[in-house]
Amino acid sequence: MTARILDGKKLSAEIRASVKEETAFLREKGIVPGLAVVLVGDDPASKVYVGQKEKGCLEAGFASFLHRLPDSTTQEELLDLIGRLNGDASVHGILVQLPLPRQIDPDTVLAAIRPEKDVDGFHPVNVGRLVAGLPACEPCTPKGILRLLKSTGIPLAGKEAVVIGRSNIVGKPVALMLLAESATVTVCHSRTKDLAEHVRRADILVAAIGKPRFVTADMVKEGAVVVDVGINRLEEGLVGDVDFGPVSEKAAWITPVPGGVGPMTIAMLLENTLEQAKKA
Amino acid sequence: MTARILDGKKLSAEIRASVKEETAFLREKGIVPGLAVVLVGDDPASKVYVGQKEKGCLEAGFASFLHRLPDSTTQEELLDLIGRLNGDASVHGILVQLPLPRQIDPDTVLAAIRPEKDVDGFHPVNVGRLVAGLPACEPCTPKGILRLLKSTGIPLAGKEAVVIGRSNIVGKPVALMLLAESATVTVCHSRTKDLAEHVRRADILVAAIGKPRFVTADMVKEGAVVVDVGINRLEEGLVGDVDFGPVSEKAAWITPVPGGVGPMTIAMLLENTLEQAKKA
Repeated sequence: MTARILDGKKLSAEIRASVKEETAFLREKGIVPGLAVVLVGDDPASKVYVGQKEKGCLEAGFASFLHRLPDSTTQEELLDLIGRLNGDASVHGILVQLPLPRQIDPDTVLAAIRPEKDVDGFHPVNVGRLVAGLPACEPCTPKGILRLLKSTGIPLAGKEAVVIGRSNIVGKPVALMLLAESATVTVCHSRTKDLAEHVRRADILVAAIGKPRFVTADMVKEGAVVVDVGINRLEEGLVGDVDFGPVSEKAAWITPVPGGVGPMTIAMLLENTLEQAKKA
Repeated sequence: MTARILDGKKLSAEIRASVKEETAFLREKGIVPGLAVVLVGDDPASKVYVGQKEKGCLEAGFASFLHRLPDSTTQEELLDLIGRLNGDASVHGILVQLPLPRQIDPDTVLAAIRPEKDVDGFHPVNVGRLVAGLPACEPCTPKGILRLLKSTGIPLAGKEAVVIGRSNIVGKPVALMLLAESATVTVCHSRTKDLAEHVRRADILVAAIGKPRFVTADMVKEGAVVVDVGINRLEEGLVGDVDFGPVSEKAAWITPVPGGVGPMTIAMLLENTLEQAKKA
């Protein structure tokens, strides 16, 4: 079997086009979706991500408000800014780019964002609502993964889903979302024994561990759907957590890196911001 | 192998004794832990549960405030009561007994309780904090299950844990808590194919499906730790989700029904209320 490509670039472009269309409609009614992005410090990767988000906003017809603060910013100063953004009617979404400098506790900051302006889906209220199966702002990367999976047309109910990685940002929420789709879900991680054995059972495999080419072809079931969340920067370029070439000989569907999950994350951020603007 | 009994009655009595001791100490400082229990309508099972909770409170030296409302209570009336309890300094914990009458949305009601007065661990903020691994009020039944598992002295890290059932009250939170203990966690449910195959892998098995004697001996691995959350009322009496007799011939540890998870739930409620009182 040679895998079909789960094309995040193409799907995200479609989603962004539809966000743009809805935004034009909203603007006719006088509402301009606004995303405030807060960047503290000078982390080069963060600057790249923030730049992509700004660009996405402008293309969609959103207002983008970039707040840059120095690395020496205190937690109180940041909370003060968030308080102002919480009260600003032109801001429908607030995104604090992580990581934050050491002197600032990210959990305190994320919890200070009004849940109705959370577009990352990291606010405890939104995480709790996600667990309970209530309407919630869903975190962007897991939401994008589910959208990719659904685009295959393969029903998820009753499927064996294996998630490698248990982060708050990807592993745990994607496991909960697959469970909500009635997949049987196993979460594996660094402490898992016989990890390969688990992975071999997977009809749906989500790899989010940050180890280049960790998932090899011998670990993958014939006909599996493989989603690679890894973005590992090697000298040769960006490499995923999945050994793409050999695995794509066995899988039915596979996401490339880059061009798979990555572009979906920004599309979902735009969609989340639009949703909050529609509700405001 | 004949299983050792995971004795929830004994362990919960120890926990209650320690709660009582801490309460006596707190009362010397002028703080009386107070639990407000709200019972809407006349559900006979709910009345039994509420009675057990009141009794547990009084034995521990807590103040217990029972609020009984008629079946015809509106959501607004209930929210009004919760607002008053939220503002009442003598109330450290608020518990709304479920199920509620049809005209009341339980999610709206649970979210109205101040997270600092949530003792059931059902408030979205507490659920979200649990997912993120932050300090949170943990839901009573899953917390009691983890306490039972830890009492065996068996390390949970790296163990194969299988949870049958994906409810918000037991299955999902217990899976998240086992994951936080670094077990490899699989959640099975009604849509799972080859459920028996999964259960056979389990070093730690949590059965929470509400089907009498659903887990039979052929599904259980030799030496497994089996936690039975089921409380099924049959003519012959209370029966768990596990076929106790034959399974106890294979398991290393097993919880009885009654006397296993049940008594732990109330002990955890008392502990949660004490914790909230200590923080107040």
